[in-house]
Amino acid sequence: MYPIMSFCFCVLLYGCGLSGARMHPANNERENAVLRRKKELSKTKLKIISLGGLNEIGKNLTCIEYGNDMVIIDCGLGFPEEDMLGIDLVIPDITYLEKNSDRIRGILLTHGHEDHIGALPYVLKTVNVPVYGTGLTIGILENKLLEHELDTAPELITVEAGDRVSLGCFEAEFIHVNHSIADSCCIALRTPVGTIVHSGDFKLDITPAVGEMMDITRLGEIGREGVLLLMCESTNAERPGYSPSERKVGASFGNLLQTYRNNRIIIATFSSNVHRVQQIIDLSAKYNRKVAITGRSMLNVVGAAVRLGYMNVPDGVLIDISEIKKYSPEQLIVVTTGSQGEPMSALYRMTFSGHDKVTLDSNDVVVLSANPIPGNEKLVGKIINELYRRGVTVVNDATAEVHVSGHACREELMLMHALTKPKYFMPIHGEYRHLINHKNLALKMGMPSENIFVSAIGKVLEIDGEGARFNGSVPSGKVLIDGYGVGDVGNVVLRDRRHLAQDGLIAIVVTVDTDELEIVSGPDIISRGFVYVKESEDLMEEIRDLSYESISDCLLSGADDWIQLKTKVKDDVSKFLYSKTKRNPMILPIIMEV
Amino acid sequence: MYPIMSFCFCVLLYGCGLSGARMHPANNERENAVLRRKKELSKTKLKIISLGGLNEIGKNLTCIEYGNDMVIIDCGLGFPEEDMLGIDLVIPDITYLEKNSDRIRGILLTHGHEDHIGALPYVLKTVNVPVYGTGLTIGILENKLLEHELDTAPELITVEAGDRVSLGCFEAEFIHVNHSIADSCCIALRTPVGTIVHSGDFKLDITPAVGEMMDITRLGEIGREGVLLLMCESTNAERPGYSPSERKVGASFGNLLQTYRNNRIIIATFSSNVHRVQQIIDLSAKYNRKVAITGRSMLNVVGAAVRLGYMNVPDGVLIDISEIKKYSPEQLIVVTTGSQGEPMSALYRMTFSGHDKVTLDSNDVVVLSANPIPGNEKLVGKIINELYRRGVTVVNDATAEVHVSGHACREELMLMHALTKPKYFMPIHGEYRHLINHKNLALKMGMPSENIFVSAIGKVLEIDGEGARFNGSVPSGKVLIDGYGVGDVGNVVLRDRRHLAQDGLIAIVVTVDTDELEIVSGPDIISRGFVYVKESEDLMEEIRDLSYESISDCLLSGADDWIQLKTKVKDDVSKFLYSKTKRNPMILPIIMEV
Repeated sequence: MYPIMSFCFCVLLYGCGLSGARMHPANNERENAVLRRKKELSKTKLKIISLGGLNEIGKNLTCIEYGNDMVIIDCGLGFPEEDMLGIDLVIPDITYLEKNSDRIRGILLTHGHEDHIGALPYVLKTVNVPVYGTGLTIGILENKLLEHELDTAPELITVEAGDRVSLGCFEAEFIHVNHSIADSCCIALRTPVGTIVHSGDFKLDITPAVGEMMDITRLGEIGREGVLLLMCESTNAERPGYSPSERKVGASFGNLLQTYRNNRIIIATFSSNVHRVQQIIDLSAKYNRKVAITGRSMLNVVGAAVRLGYMNVPDGVLIDISEIKKYSPEQLIVVTTGSQGEPMSALYRMTFSGHDKVTLDSNDVVVLSANPIPGNEKLVGKIINELYRRGVTVVNDATAEVHVSGHACREELMLMHALTKPKYFMPIHGEYRHLINHKNLALKMGMPSENIFVSAIGKVLEIDGEGARFNGSVPSGKVLIDGYGVGDVGNVVLRDRRHLAQDGLIAIVVTVDTDELEIVSGPDIISRGFVYVKESEDLMEEIRDLSYESISDCLLSGADDWIQLKTKVKDDVSKFLYSKTKRNPMILPIIMEV
Repeated sequence: MYPIMSFCFCVLLYGCGLSGARMHPANNERENAVLRRKKELSKTKLKIISLGGLNEIGKNLTCIEYGNDMVIIDCGLGFPEEDMLGIDLVIPDITYLEKNSDRIRGILLTHGHEDHIGALPYVLKTVNVPVYGTGLTIGILENKLLEHELDTAPELITVEAGDRVSLGCFEAEFIHVNHSIADSCCIALRTPVGTIVHSGDFKLDITPAVGEMMDITRLGEIGREGVLLLMCESTNAERPGYSPSERKVGASFGNLLQTYRNNRIIIATFSSNVHRVQQIIDLSAKYNRKVAITGRSMLNVVGAAVRLGYMNVPDGVLIDISEIKKYSPEQLIVVTTGSQGEPMSALYRMTFSGHDKVTLDSNDVVVLSANPIPGNEKLVGKIINELYRRGVTVVNDATAEVHVSGHACREELMLMHALTKPKYFMPIHGEYRHLINHKNLALKMGMPSENIFVSAIGKVLEIDGEGARFNGSVPSGKVLIDGYGVGDVGNVVLRDRRHLAQDGLIAIVVTVDTDELEIVSGPDIISRGFVYVKESEDLMEEIRDLSYESISDCLLSGADDWIQLKTKVKDDVSKFLYSKTKRNPMILPIIMEV
């Protein structure tokens, strides 16, 4: 099933040339190139390095390099873990890219989801290289870049599925796949050592709501030519069978429109699922409803999709959310963000009476056309409970088939393996459990264990004529974004936030006369997040007395080493408070000198 | 299906008498009682008040009162919501119980789970009344009370399913049900107005692993006598069908023991699921394995169950965890806590090399015999990923049927309704979505909408000869427990913790000469959890300068109103920091006077 593949020198056909078009270099140039590359091949190695997306969901970023050329596939962001208090976003550590920016020939985007393009506004600030993506992907990226100030306008190049792009010694071919956002591609990257297929995110939808089925024919052709390495997403590697077609969701929506013909219907879904919104619009036209869209990201994406021709909206169907009062409930569908229960999203505000145009009541039907992403269950639950309290009818995946996954389940993953017949395989995009289950799936299909590489971020997979192996690593990690700060919140700050979150803080402030070594003011005790001070005056008094004693003792013994004094006060108060309350607030001794 | 029921005066048969035994009052006493109660009935109302368990999972507590008598059913704790930073546990606000403690005739426990008994150590401190429960329930409670210091030893009374207990004008009958802990009961409470059936937590297990099927015969008899009000749990009101039998889990364990005959097997499950542990012990005896138990709560519960005869352990099967080194892996099963991914649980420590007796590797099979409770998905996922990284084989509910729910699914709930045929119905134990789905189920079965009462904590449901209605409310809410503190962390403290968790804090300390109104020391800037100070010295300097200016301005203008001055500094620094960093740390201006 996985035959040993000889190197494909044919790929050198596309080894150099201009971007964005098929290349036909002159014959003599071609021969020279072949000779030059043959020589290089003997010593140069193909390197594959992921800076994100391994052992984690999100921040997908893969570097592929050979000699002096490097390409990047995707450049996504991740969301903070629960213990990353106050953090807004996470992006990959791109030290390695910054150090090698002169070698980077371009960034290839598989599709327009945040976990594939979200880090670009940050990365392009220091690594300004051409970015290639399909129309919708680039459209969404442009919107996103408007919110950030870049010193140099980035070079954004729009491609179509089927296009080939030359990047140094590499040639990338974009191949159409199905996914929960339109215009998604996987990438076949011809390298001097052989072809890499990078799946991006994909599913096989035989009856997509809009557009074509994933181009499995082209993938099969490439497989027949020979694939050196398959890098394939693993999100649903634990889910058996096939992911259902997006058209099933449309059918469910149709049923709901017939069942709830007298109600206003509010559908919450992922803003980027353009084809789902298209289905809603088509059904609305059929059933004579108007569609109003609310939520910033939904408006952004639908705006871009309509502008770029990815959506087809019959005249008069779309209305502005401010116009809904002109229509009766049964004439309306509201499409909204907030399907993950995000506080302050449009659905959240509609549910908790914070939306200026829509308030939900017992005549409304809310369709949650999404599954909660792990970690969001409680947020979504909070909205569902409040909707029930208001008498709203709630329809979700448990009640009707109003959501399907955009990721390949096990049979689809097996199809990808069977089509591409790779020599080597590296599972990507997933937590460790997903990567290992994907590895086990490849083993079951007959791939030799030594040809499968479960990697980690920063780890270098090296392939040459001799074979493939891990060899060393490059800097990698998470860069935390908090407000305008990129990377200024690290472990020390997070540790303090966790400490403060747990038990609050006690500041002990004292003014000391440094000549006489005596207390001239204080100690004053200030507490935040520890106990309700007005009801704990005795405790505060005890802390004050203990601190006074502790500081006086030190000063009497002639100590003017403030660090030592602070440690003493901290220890004394800490011990006392733990014995009294079984809590460990942060103790902050502050000494003012006069 | 729900016939109107006339009042059951027959219940007065059990209207007064001693606790813990069947009553046979003399005939003349009985007639007097009937007359007395008939008179009372005309004016006294039966009141049903839940202080927990409505619109929330956990902290179940229901008061039922009539005239001068009150009984409590269950007294559980809840777990903190995600935004209750630093909080360990939540118990119901029992102000109402404390005010009425002289009327409380007893607390009836349905079973020994934390969400039904966990608040007792706190409640018994101020409301010391007799507690009734089955053997295992009381056994677990005794263990729990040992960890708390009560001034007065509580009166704990052990009953058996089938027993009737007289409590003032009430009589409680304990009826055997199946659940994920042994010795669970529902309660039929005879009141002067009619019989209340309180389901506790239950499922119907036709082939339980140990013991009898739920006593549906007795419930049917009581239903035939007439039930005034059914209070029924709603946990699985959204799940169709029947909950599978516990015996299925045993069968799956049996298969795993045959599949992994050469491996050590570690099974993580809920410590209180005595019957599941019993099945593991039986299979171990059959397959010649030794069972070692680890995790404090697992040891506690199994200890109590063995001591009280709820488990049957063949000689030589149970070994101490310290003895495992004497056996080879295929001779061992380790039963552990930590199935919810709790940090510092035994499974967590085994997984992350923090357990002193067990470290997991590629020869181990870990069975997660539990589903993650909503909110715990990420914690459980963290353990699963680490297990995969270590090459451990992971078996969970997705792979094999190694867990079944202990709660009635929709068909079982319908059975409860069909057996008890209540006049009124109040869904309990669930979030709002569960209560409403349970209500809808009752409607579907033909119950009139006006006979269904979806209540809220503190709300008083009143029933008399005229009918049933909500009438007013009593104090209710959540009391937060943090360390030794019960209720000393309220909204102000939590708000501060959230603020500190989000962006940390900046303290601005200055010493002022109050006579001259001038700064004699500082301002010093202290930061925690905001930015890494060593890399932000310029920013700190800017804050210092701004504060100096702000304070000096105030002092120069002769202001000695410190509150005003503090507000000014806070505003100035806040605005500056937000514009610079888009963050809002807590600003703490501290003025020391000399």
